[in-house]
Amino acid sequence: MKNAYEQLTEHYKKVGDLRHVYMITSWDEAAMMPIGGGEARGEALASLDVVIHEMVVNSQVGDWIETCSNLDLDDWQQANLREIKREYDEMTCLPSDFVRTQSVARAKAEQAWRLLRGENDWQTFLPLLEEVVTHAREEAEVRSARTGLGKYDALLETFEPGMRGVVLDDLFARLKTTLPDMVTAALDKQAQRPLLPLGDQFDIDKQRELGLRVMDLLGFDFDHGRLDVSHHPFCGGVKEDVRITTRYTTDNFVESLMAVVHETGHAMYEQGRPKGLSGQPVTNARSAGVHESQSLMMEMQIGRSRQFLGFIAPIIRDVFGVSDSQPAWSDQNLHRLYTRVERSLIRVDADELTYPLHVILRYEIERALIEGAIEARDIPALWDEKMMAYLERDTRGDYRNGCMQDVHWSASLFGYFPTYTLGAMMAAQQFAAMQQALPDVLANIGTGDLTAAVGWLRENIHNQGSRLKTAELMTEATGETLNADYFLSHLQRRYVDNV
Amino acid sequence: MKNAYEQLTEHYKKVGDLRHVYMITSWDEAAMMPIGGGEARGEALASLDVVIHEMVVNSQVGDWIETCSNLDLDDWQQANLREIKREYDEMTCLPSDFVRTQSVARAKAEQAWRLLRGENDWQTFLPLLEEVVTHAREEAEVRSARTGLGKYDALLETFEPGMRGVVLDDLFARLKTTLPDMVTAALDKQAQRPLLPLGDQFDIDKQRELGLRVMDLLGFDFDHGRLDVSHHPFCGGVKEDVRITTRYTTDNFVESLMAVVHETGHAMYEQGRPKGLSGQPVTNARSAGVHESQSLMMEMQIGRSRQFLGFIAPIIRDVFGVSDSQPAWSDQNLHRLYTRVERSLIRVDADELTYPLHVILRYEIERALIEGAIEARDIPALWDEKMMAYLERDTRGDYRNGCMQDVHWSASLFGYFPTYTLGAMMAAQQFAAMQQALPDVLANIGTGDLTAAVGWLRENIHNQGSRLKTAELMTEATGETLNADYFLSHLQRRYVDNV
Repeated sequence: MKNAYEQLTEHYKKVGDLRHVYMITSWDEAAMMPIGGGEARGEALASLDVVIHEMVVNSQVGDWIETCSNLDLDDWQQANLREIKREYDEMTCLPSDFVRTQSVARAKAEQAWRLLRGENDWQTFLPLLEEVVTHAREEAEVRSARTGLGKYDALLETFEPGMRGVVLDDLFARLKTTLPDMVTAALDKQAQRPLLPLGDQFDIDKQRELGLRVMDLLGFDFDHGRLDVSHHPFCGGVKEDVRITTRYTTDNFVESLMAVVHETGHAMYEQGRPKGLSGQPVTNARSAGVHESQSLMMEMQIGRSRQFLGFIAPIIRDVFGVSDSQPAWSDQNLHRLYTRVERSLIRVDADELTYPLHVILRYEIERALIEGAIEARDIPALWDEKMMAYLERDTRGDYRNGCMQDVHWSASLFGYFPTYTLGAMMAAQQFAAMQQALPDVLANIGTGDLTAAVGWLRENIHNQGSRLKTAELMTEATGETLNADYFLSHLQRRYVDNV
Repeated sequence: MKNAYEQLTEHYKKVGDLRHVYMITSWDEAAMMPIGGGEARGEALASLDVVIHEMVVNSQVGDWIETCSNLDLDDWQQANLREIKREYDEMTCLPSDFVRTQSVARAKAEQAWRLLRGENDWQTFLPLLEEVVTHAREEAEVRSARTGLGKYDALLETFEPGMRGVVLDDLFARLKTTLPDMVTAALDKQAQRPLLPLGDQFDIDKQRELGLRVMDLLGFDFDHGRLDVSHHPFCGGVKEDVRITTRYTTDNFVESLMAVVHETGHAMYEQGRPKGLSGQPVTNARSAGVHESQSLMMEMQIGRSRQFLGFIAPIIRDVFGVSDSQPAWSDQNLHRLYTRVERSLIRVDADELTYPLHVILRYEIERALIEGAIEARDIPALWDEKMMAYLERDTRGDYRNGCMQDVHWSASLFGYFPTYTLGAMMAAQQFAAMQQALPDVLANIGTGDLTAAVGWLRENIHNQGSRLKTAELMTEATGETLNADYFLSHLQRRYVDNV
């Protein structure tokens, strides 16, 4: 007779198997599917989603969880049980009727957004967004009642377990008071360094070859993953078979390559998650923020370092068949290109230094929205005001490049934006700890040897899965909980001091 | 309150959705998956298969089917109910313990086959095959008891509903008495026509471009499908999103291109299956034989016709940048290349004329095996004898190129081989009827216009799904049930008379 924990893990093995199929088919939808397959695919994935959902919220699961509390479990098992319980509570607390209505409202808003953003049409979009906000507030209330957390925290918890608005306020306050001046200083420095254009004809096969070479360098395991193309770069698939994507334009390879580096960071986390324990939640990535810390580790801490860029510059020149005697293709100019700062309107195009300001602006607005301090109709004015205050950019009337630029709110992803900057802060803190433990790590990166760096990440982050809570993970890896100093020092060094 | 038929179709919509996901993920396994993803993928698909199987054999389905007999249904609904019942009976008649043991025996034999074929090791393979045969005989007995069919017919029924061994015997007797002499005559004619070699360096990107151009010409809808690469060419995916594959070698484009044409035939059938009625068995392809008739319609009836080859010859020359002033690249030489006859050892490499003899040999052996007239250990001697009699080739001791060349028996696909030649006969009969109805159809094909041909197939075959039984489908489309004359006349014309 199997005990409750064994039954629970067997059940979750099956859930994991169905999620595997879901993830691969979703990747296919974005990377492979021809346009005419969309409708049937949407229905197929929705049906599979229902099957998975029913398996996870099955009352039998609740019974097993309860019975498990009497069992003697080791720490991985306890952590697995904790994560199963968290998912069970999260998924059972909303009535299924509510989930269905909310999902319809979301789908409507998302579809409208795709069309209306291009048309800069805020007025038509507003009532659809209002409906999503109404549902999100109701969701926040239900989750708040179940968890005892504040309303915004109850949503944040679903993306970043353990994080609280009050902690975010402190962390973001540090950034908000420091970054605007740092941006000014960086722009002043930058103005003294001319940037030379690279030209605008880059063969896509060569760009792909370059991406593959850099992935290999970063330690991506091609026996357990692939690189393809999709409309927006992402990391999908499953830990045994990680699918990353990028997109190419012939006139520019710079962004596409760094998208590959970013997604490779996500992929390395996936490929390094605990082996075995198939389908068990304890093997999951710890949180959205920790996941982002791994992509930003590769993209920002390692990928844009002078050492790494110095190592790949000859590879870039080799692939495109150019020589470093051309000043635009010198190590120095490539480094400048990859550390360019600009007060831009669009978050996804923003550089490392200004990005947090885009996030903080959104955090402040979405939190006020969920807590009822503002209404959806107040968003544009607030957006304009904050863009001016944080980034000195005027967005009045420009909804397309203002408050309509992201899909997140249409998709009701309230609580998600902060995880981008949490990831950036975690990455800086992890990299500082790594350098402490491995004094030669940057020098090694400069020779193309990432073994030690990846080894540190494997041991301290990837292989941990969700065994520890995020604060514990950071403390075990870096000696302290999240501290904005590391990120700020890193930015100061890269963009002001060492230019 | 929904009636039983509505509940049944709703249920099958969900089954169809899960099958959609299964099909796409299986395609991914063959066409996209990196090697390291295999183990987890196998488990994931097995779990999904269990979920689908449980949905189909659910006793509720049996109850709905029974209740439906009291309802007033139109002919599509009746056909759908008939197909649902057929699947339900087929899937419920084997005890689940048996299915599991059989599936293990099959997996063992298949894996061993992959290794042992290369080593020409029949002795090690034999006991594994014996186990599969034991299970297959038991399956045949159970299915026979349930359906009242003979043992071999009970297996044949699962691939080719309505077909019987006694009918096959008649059809195949015609081929067996005619083809060996026809092959001799064809080889005599062929000996008088020299075949010029094309060279052996063909860029794979160009081969792919050629394949895509020919698919387009044949009417493949790229909004609802793709072309990719896999180890063996196949047609997968779902009707809204059909995935075909081919394989390329740099030294030869001829086979790869015709594989594309063949799979495009399968794909056209899939893309033309009844719209809507999502997931309902009545929309399924009629049978393995009818499916093969559509691939062979494109590959053999249309694809290797002088008219079609004459139209694509300039396209082939254009893609590879050669001129028809080179004799090897003339229309005539390309036609000879695509109608080459050879008494070969390997079925999958066989030409149109000798292929049926490979199939008949296997049919005779597998039928005797299932009916207990011979044992697995008798296969090699029988194989040698029949290969000598039908194709004048000596296979003694050459198991690799003899009775170990196909995976089918390891996979327990007894009853499948005949469908290849049934398909060839159906295709010839359909094409004859099409020419009767559309006298200009071959001339149109010669100008690259397949509209009328595809229109005929859509109306008479594709759009019918499984509404009719196979014999009815053939009778409505061609005026009579399956008749070997059309196929034999076609072969006589192409390989002897009109050379």
